[in-house]
Amino acid sequence: MSFSFQVEAVCGAARAGRLVTPHGEVRTPVFMPVGTVGSVKGLSQELLEELGVEILLNNTYHLYLRPGVETVRQLGGVQRFMAWDRPILTDSGGFQVFSLNELRRLNEDGVQFRSHLDGSLHFFSPETSLAAEIGLGADIVMAFDECTEYPADHARARHSMELTARWARRSKDYFEAHKQAVPWFERPLGPEGRSGQRQALFGIVQGGMYPDLRAESADRTLEIGFDGYAIGGLSVGEPRERTWEIVSRTLPRLPEDKPRYVMGVGTPQEIVEYVRLGVDMMDCVLPTRAARHGLLYTSHGRLNIKNACFARDEGPIDPACGCRVCARYSRAYLRHLYCSQELLAQVLNTVHNLAHYLDIMRRVRETIISGEFASTHPAV
Amino acid sequence: MSFSFQVEAVCGAARAGRLVTPHGEVRTPVFMPVGTVGSVKGLSQELLEELGVEILLNNTYHLYLRPGVETVRQLGGVQRFMAWDRPILTDSGGFQVFSLNELRRLNEDGVQFRSHLDGSLHFFSPETSLAAEIGLGADIVMAFDECTEYPADHARARHSMELTARWARRSKDYFEAHKQAVPWFERPLGPEGRSGQRQALFGIVQGGMYPDLRAESADRTLEIGFDGYAIGGLSVGEPRERTWEIVSRTLPRLPEDKPRYVMGVGTPQEIVEYVRLGVDMMDCVLPTRAARHGLLYTSHGRLNIKNACFARDEGPIDPACGCRVCARYSRAYLRHLYCSQELLAQVLNTVHNLAHYLDIMRRVRETIISGEFASTHPAV
Repeated sequence: MSFSFQVEAVCGAARAGRLVTPHGEVRTPVFMPVGTVGSVKGLSQELLEELGVEILLNNTYHLYLRPGVETVRQLGGVQRFMAWDRPILTDSGGFQVFSLNELRRLNEDGVQFRSHLDGSLHFFSPETSLAAEIGLGADIVMAFDECTEYPADHARARHSMELTARWARRSKDYFEAHKQAVPWFERPLGPEGRSGQRQALFGIVQGGMYPDLRAESADRTLEIGFDGYAIGGLSVGEPRERTWEIVSRTLPRLPEDKPRYVMGVGTPQEIVEYVRLGVDMMDCVLPTRAARHGLLYTSHGRLNIKNACFARDEGPIDPACGCRVCARYSRAYLRHLYCSQELLAQVLNTVHNLAHYLDIMRRVRETIISGEFASTHPAV
Repeated sequence: MSFSFQVEAVCGAARAGRLVTPHGEVRTPVFMPVGTVGSVKGLSQELLEELGVEILLNNTYHLYLRPGVETVRQLGGVQRFMAWDRPILTDSGGFQVFSLNELRRLNEDGVQFRSHLDGSLHFFSPETSLAAEIGLGADIVMAFDECTEYPADHARARHSMELTARWARRSKDYFEAHKQAVPWFERPLGPEGRSGQRQALFGIVQGGMYPDLRAESADRTLEIGFDGYAIGGLSVGEPRERTWEIVSRTLPRLPEDKPRYVMGVGTPQEIVEYVRLGVDMMDCVLPTRAARHGLLYTSHGRLNIKNACFARDEGPIDPACGCRVCARYSRAYLRHLYCSQELLAQVLNTVHNLAHYLDIMRRVRETIISGEFASTHPAV
């Protein structure tokens, strides 16, 4: 078996589990840092390992455009390409096509779009997207979906959800027919050094902000059958209560023995609350992007390191944080680096914010296992 | 004694020695990476330590403008400010005033200039520059000099050299009168935890491209008496053979029992040849700046990582290099990062180039001590 998921402990609806993938194990609940083009901006893979990152997310859209799928495939897949031998998940590219391309043309077959780099024309369909994801060779790949825009009326959201359902079927069919083309198929992997392993394919539930459509989407996605299930089409501009409502009403429809992944969330408080609802996997650019804008998460909330009050502040970002940045550098120095637009500001801020997210998830997992999580005070 | 220099081995004119400063020892010959505003661009202090960096150069001009001397002084000096407890050297700010300010106004007293950040007016004299250097608290500080422009005729170069000689006297006088104001004067430092230590002050030889003026400048600087002697006013646009001639003719006039520092040089080949002439200390932005432009130094010359030939090259930058970048990342990945303008490209390229420079200096030092250096083939 190339992919498995075991729930090891349950506390309320929250679960602590373990994903087994060709490139190693991932303890859940897990927050996946985003390494858009094959790099978590500013951080070496050594730093990611030191932070305890167990799985990264890469964007198929970006890697497809540069350096190109064939290059990554010839170099042995994205893990070997980026010298990261732990698990990786790729999205399908759909979200970027919809968010970065105003001139896209969509039909039943797929979507035509222009590269944001050079304006060149490209076409993503369930088949070409999955071909790209197989060529890149992440451990977990996502079905090609349409990310319904917000706002969208019920008819439009139904139309979009039904398209996603048909594309999910085609994604699964293409994957099943081509899964042996993954670049590391012949390579011995894992502690037992087995070759012939395959990627895991996750389906995505859409349906806009309509619980009835979400329910139908979940049923149709489950009917096709995937290794895991994601809730997509969130964080597209809707109010947070809406996101919350959709996740909390959709999750109970997803099977308990498969990983549940909410895409593109959230704040430090929110990721804890999604775990409480039963979410196993999350990803978000928030900690890394905010870091590059000088916004740092602490156990007492968010601080803006460029504030003048930090100019002579000898203390660490967060006295309660055990990361290497808080162990060594003062707010005064970090403010200076940020105000001077030094590269190191982005590096150190990112290390801290990711450490904060990963520490939260480690503590949450421990309290699920110890049975104390359900009684912790909800953060949202 | 707060500062000392011992020559431990000689091989031809080359010397292997040891600088002892309040913040620790430095083995010479040494290449000092440039940390302009208190950061070697992109590298954490942990990475600098891992590279074996024993002393950094910071620019007084930049730190004076931002975050300001008083801020650094209140935070305990530049070592504590940047969380780097090893030695630091600051230049006097003169070079940046001359190179970054076209509208400067110079008179006998000093030089008025505008901040490149906000256009505000400032004035550097030997006294204000040394006050800044004492407030920043580097272990080694430089006298305030006029960096003679290139080309300059003999009369102009003499005038400038004589001004530098008078400013050197004033720098020394100010330093002697105020050296106890260094922010760590009361702090126990070093293995013996002694307080009351002071900075070392180096004089700078000027004189343009005229050997007679260089000789006179050396004599006048020696007459004042400094802890070490630098050759300044080079790498200002002159042909390399000129730089070489000036250094080789000036060095024999500098005392053998003091460290000799050539400012602002050079390529990997050149730094070896300067050591052969008897130089103990060098600094240059070349390895770090070139790295940020994708130019990487190897044992077989320089390569431009953005070249298409590296797109699918699985090899390291330099198979003969033992740095952490060459141990892990392929040229293909580094090219991708550079072409994608990823922050990590600048970080990893800088790590490699600095490792290359520091490895060269380590090997040079070893062969001086073993007596084999003089017989190695000259690189230039």
